[in-house]
Amino acid sequence: MTMKTTIAYLGPEGTFSHQAAQKCLESNPGNINLQPYPGIAQVLYAVENDETALGVVPAENSIEGSVNITLDLLARDIPLYIKAEIIIDIKHHLLSHSKDLNSVHTVMSHTQAIAQCRHFLETRLKNADILETTSTAEAVSRLNSHGEGLAAIGSPESHKIYQVPILHPDIGCYPHNQTRFLLVGRSPETNSLSSKTSLVLSLKKDRPGGLYDILGEFAKYELNLCKIESRPAKMGLGNYLFFIDCEAGSNHPDLLKVIDSLRTKTGYLKNLGSYRCIS
Amino acid sequence: MTMKTTIAYLGPEGTFSHQAAQKCLESNPGNINLQPYPGIAQVLYAVENDETALGVVPAENSIEGSVNITLDLLARDIPLYIKAEIIIDIKHHLLSHSKDLNSVHTVMSHTQAIAQCRHFLETRLKNADILETTSTAEAVSRLNSHGEGLAAIGSPESHKIYQVPILHPDIGCYPHNQTRFLLVGRSPETNSLSSKTSLVLSLKKDRPGGLYDILGEFAKYELNLCKIESRPAKMGLGNYLFFIDCEAGSNHPDLLKVIDSLRTKTGYLKNLGSYRCIS
Repeated sequence: MTMKTTIAYLGPEGTFSHQAAQKCLESNPGNINLQPYPGIAQVLYAVENDETALGVVPAENSIEGSVNITLDLLARDIPLYIKAEIIIDIKHHLLSHSKDLNSVHTVMSHTQAIAQCRHFLETRLKNADILETTSTAEAVSRLNSHGEGLAAIGSPESHKIYQVPILHPDIGCYPHNQTRFLLVGRSPETNSLSSKTSLVLSLKKDRPGGLYDILGEFAKYELNLCKIESRPAKMGLGNYLFFIDCEAGSNHPDLLKVIDSLRTKTGYLKNLGSYRCIS
Repeated sequence: MTMKTTIAYLGPEGTFSHQAAQKCLESNPGNINLQPYPGIAQVLYAVENDETALGVVPAENSIEGSVNITLDLLARDIPLYIKAEIIIDIKHHLLSHSKDLNSVHTVMSHTQAIAQCRHFLETRLKNADILETTSTAEAVSRLNSHGEGLAAIGSPESHKIYQVPILHPDIGCYPHNQTRFLLVGRSPETNSLSSKTSLVLSLKKDRPGGLYDILGEFAKYELNLCKIESRPAKMGLGNYLFFIDCEAGSNHPDLLKVIDSLRTKTGYLKNLGSYRCIS
C-alpha cells in the first residue's frame, strides 16, 4: 500500500485555492488527496507542522497585489519552500437568494474579493454591510442557512457547488484578473525543470544605493527580475524585507553565483526555492 | 472675511486619520476646518473635484504595509500631489459593552486594524464573525445602537469619544505600530523645507536590469531611497508600477537631474511632490 500525499488548501470546496490545488492534482494524478483548511495561516502551519506534505496558498493577485499573510509567513527563517506556482483566472459573481440588489443588506466575501469588486459595491450596493469571511466559498456556503438580504461574492465554481443563483454576474472592477498560487513544502524543489527562483532579503545597512547594489548582482549576469516587492519588517516604519523573483531556475549556471554574492550584502537572506509553473 | 481651508479626512471623528488631520491643524492654526468623509476614495475624490482644498489619507502601516487604494488613486495621471506626511503611533483596543470575551459573537473594524490584530482574533475570538467597516471609529460608533455580543477594534481616542468600555486593551500583534498619513492637494507643495520626494513610475520595457538602471540614477548622485514598493499596474500579472520615496527635498541640487534622466528610462512617470514631515 502506498501512502497518499496530502495537499492542504484554503477551503472549503469551491475556493480559487481549491481550483489551484486541483491543478496540482491533475499534474500528479493518482497519489494525491486534498484537505481543506479554514485559513491561509492554517494551511502553512499544517505544512510546517508535518500534518500535510504540501499546501496551496494565494500569493499575489493582478489587481490587489500581494497576499500579505502568505509573504510574511514564508519569509520566516523556517523550512518552508516554494515547490511550484499555479496561475488561475479570477471571475467574481454576486450570488444570492435575494430577488434584486435593493433587498441585499449584507455582502460577504474574502477581503481580496471585496477589494477587487469595490467599485460595484460602492456604486450599486453602497448601503450594504460588508462582512469579511476567511474565503470566498465560505461566504457562499453561508447563504444556504440564511434567508433574504444576504449575498456573497463567489467564484463560478462555488455557484455550481452550493447551487446559489447568480444575482449579478462578473462584478469585478478589472478585466485582467488573475491570481498566482504557490505550492509549498518543507524542502526545496529538486525538479530540474524550474524556471523561476524567489528570494527574500533585508539590506545590510541603510545607505545610499543599498538596494541598487543587490540588483546589480542580478544585472551583472543578465538575470531578469520578474518581481520586486517590499514588505514591512515589522520593526517600525522604514524597515523592509524585499521579495525578489528572478527568471532563472536551479539549472541556470549563474544563479548560485548571484546568491552567494548576496550573502555578504544582505542582513537576512532566504532562498525560497526554484520552481516551475503548473498550468 | 477670509475663506477657511477645509481638510477632508476619513471619518467619523476618532479615527487615526482624524488624529493626523488634527496635527495638520495644529501646525497651521486659525484658518483650517476639518470635514469627515466615509471612505479613503471619497476623501481623494473630494480634493480632486475641488470640494475641499486638502485631504488626509493613510498611506502605509509599519505592520501591514501600504494602503493599496491610496497608492492606486494617487498613481493616476491627474493633479493630485503630496503636500506633507504625518506619522501617528497606533494602538488598538477591543471595545465592547459585552461583559467578557465569551459573549462576543461579532468583531467590527477597518480591514487594516483587523489584520494588525489577527493573532488575538484567531486565538481569543476564533468563533466570532469579522465585520469590515470603512473606518475603526465607524465600528466603534455602531456599538451604541446595538446590544451585547458586538465588539469593535478602535483607538484610545474613539474609546473616549464614543464612551464604550475597553473589554481588552492593546490587542495588536506588534509593538512597533505606526501609520504614515499623507496630506494631499491639487498642486505640488512649494514649501522649501521639504525633505522627501515621492515618484511613481513604470519600466519602459521588460529587460534584464530595467529597475537596476532606474535605481542607478539615484545612486549616481548618492540620493538615498527610503522606500521602494511595487503595485500591480492592473494589466495582468507581471506588470507593475513602482513607488519610490527618496530622501531629497525640492531644494536638493541633484533632484531635478535625476528626475529628468528618469523621463527617458520610464514608460510612465509622475512626480507626486516634495514634502516635509509634520510631527
